[in-house]
Amino acid sequence: MIEKSIYENYEIDFKENYDTEDDAYYFIFNNKRQLLVDENFDIELTNNIDINYDFKLYIGTYKQKSIFVVNTKDIENNFIDLPTIYEHNPDLYQMATRCVLVRDWYKNHQFCGKCGCKTIADKVDMMLKCPECGQVHYSRIAPAIIVAITNDEDQILMAKHSYHKTHSYALIAGFVESGESIEEAVHREVKEEIGIKIKNLKYMKSQSWPFPNSLMLAFTAQYDSGEIKVDGNEILDAKWFNREEVPLYDSDISISYWLLENYIKNTD
Amino acid sequence: MIEKSIYENYEIDFKENYDTEDDAYYFIFNNKRQLLVDENFDIELTNNIDINYDFKLYIGTYKQKSIFVVNTKDIENNFIDLPTIYEHNPDLYQMATRCVLVRDWYKNHQFCGKCGCKTIADKVDMMLKCPECGQVHYSRIAPAIIVAITNDEDQILMAKHSYHKTHSYALIAGFVESGESIEEAVHREVKEEIGIKIKNLKYMKSQSWPFPNSLMLAFTAQYDSGEIKVDGNEILDAKWFNREEVPLYDSDISISYWLLENYIKNTD
Repeated sequence: MIEKSIYENYEIDFKENYDTEDDAYYFIFNNKRQLLVDENFDIELTNNIDINYDFKLYIGTYKQKSIFVVNTKDIENNFIDLPTIYEHNPDLYQMATRCVLVRDWYKNHQFCGKCGCKTIADKVDMMLKCPECGQVHYSRIAPAIIVAITNDEDQILMAKHSYHKTHSYALIAGFVESGESIEEAVHREVKEEIGIKIKNLKYMKSQSWPFPNSLMLAFTAQYDSGEIKVDGNEILDAKWFNREEVPLYDSDISISYWLLENYIKNTD
Repeated sequence: MIEKSIYENYEIDFKENYDTEDDAYYFIFNNKRQLLVDENFDIELTNNIDINYDFKLYIGTYKQKSIFVVNTKDIENNFIDLPTIYEHNPDLYQMATRCVLVRDWYKNHQFCGKCGCKTIADKVDMMLKCPECGQVHYSRIAPAIIVAITNDEDQILMAKHSYHKTHSYALIAGFVESGESIEEAVHREVKEEIGIKIKNLKYMKSQSWPFPNSLMLAFTAQYDSGEIKVDGNEILDAKWFNREEVPLYDSDISISYWLLENYIKNTD
């Protein structure tokens, strides 16, 4: 995962209708959430975009130049998915993460969820408002927890999820529910998914995860009590791995990889 | 703030259409998000609710009995706001927090934000889906950070917000933006609101905050560099307080109170 702050290069602003004749960065996404990049997996500075687009939003400055989020129906050209961009250009991936979430917010709140009317953008804040009922619609972020659980033999717990296609075993994770703290979310998810109790919960760090819109909150914990029990439906299997057996993922893009790497390196 | 887990009394489930003749807890809210309670600031177990309601959702069990979230246009009867319930019955407040957020989710996603069509509830998960475009709508939680900053003289930083009516000075807080980690959110908010840099950021704990739908993530940090500078618009003033000068709030309901109390008690 990327350790440096997005704000080294980025300053937040928002205008729905804004034009500039200066060179700017245009982060152009198609309807598959793929980003248009050049042959170097980068975005060119330009004062003109030559593409049919649905909308174009000014979201501040990137490397001191204006930055726009653009959506197009186009599928020709060099559109690349975000994980692939991460492998070639992590800096760009970090900024693209912000951009794709702004794009999703704008696209998915064109109508008011409360009364069904067409929304309108605020002049200052990144907010869409219903002119009929007054309901406001901000960018949605779904907080989720992920936890690395170890036992007295210093083994780590990983589970096989039925919906995971890329890796066989993964750490326990899940969305935070309304009305609970993130600590309560960890205890609940672990109990629900594998039936055990944990102790010594410790928050480690967090990561924005744009697949589609999560905020990952990473913890470590220790096994406390109970037998491993899986439902056989969502979770197919769960077991303890020794340090040298951990099935590490192909990419280091995620905080999940960081937690596993942290466990493997930490030989105290 | 409440330290014990909501799951001591509550088990999650969800059904849009479910009826029982057994005694159940009915958490009935009016359109001001006030809860109907008896004269003891509690909810009676009953098999019959005598009120006109818009909707009634089964959300699992509370103290081993079925629990329903109900919305009514009624404003007669003994409807009480959540902060007042907290003062008289903290356990009930904790469960009511979950309930009011479920109510808001269901009420505010009756139409699809992407295409404007009427949504339908999933049969298993707490999820509303658009039959036309397939967009799914989960309960929305807005993650937000709050931070207690101290300086080398062991003073704490508090700011006067123009929108705060209840207390004059408060800790620095703000919503997490799309594409950032919670640590980046703290640094950005502190820089935006009072113009200083902080160091030694440390996550402390979290709290569900249903006014209207936040997840508060509490940190401590130390002053690093820069002059305090406020915009005079959102933030009117900011200054350092000694331990004995801290303007503590009237209610201990919030994690903000917990952070201040923690600072006041910690005389290392």
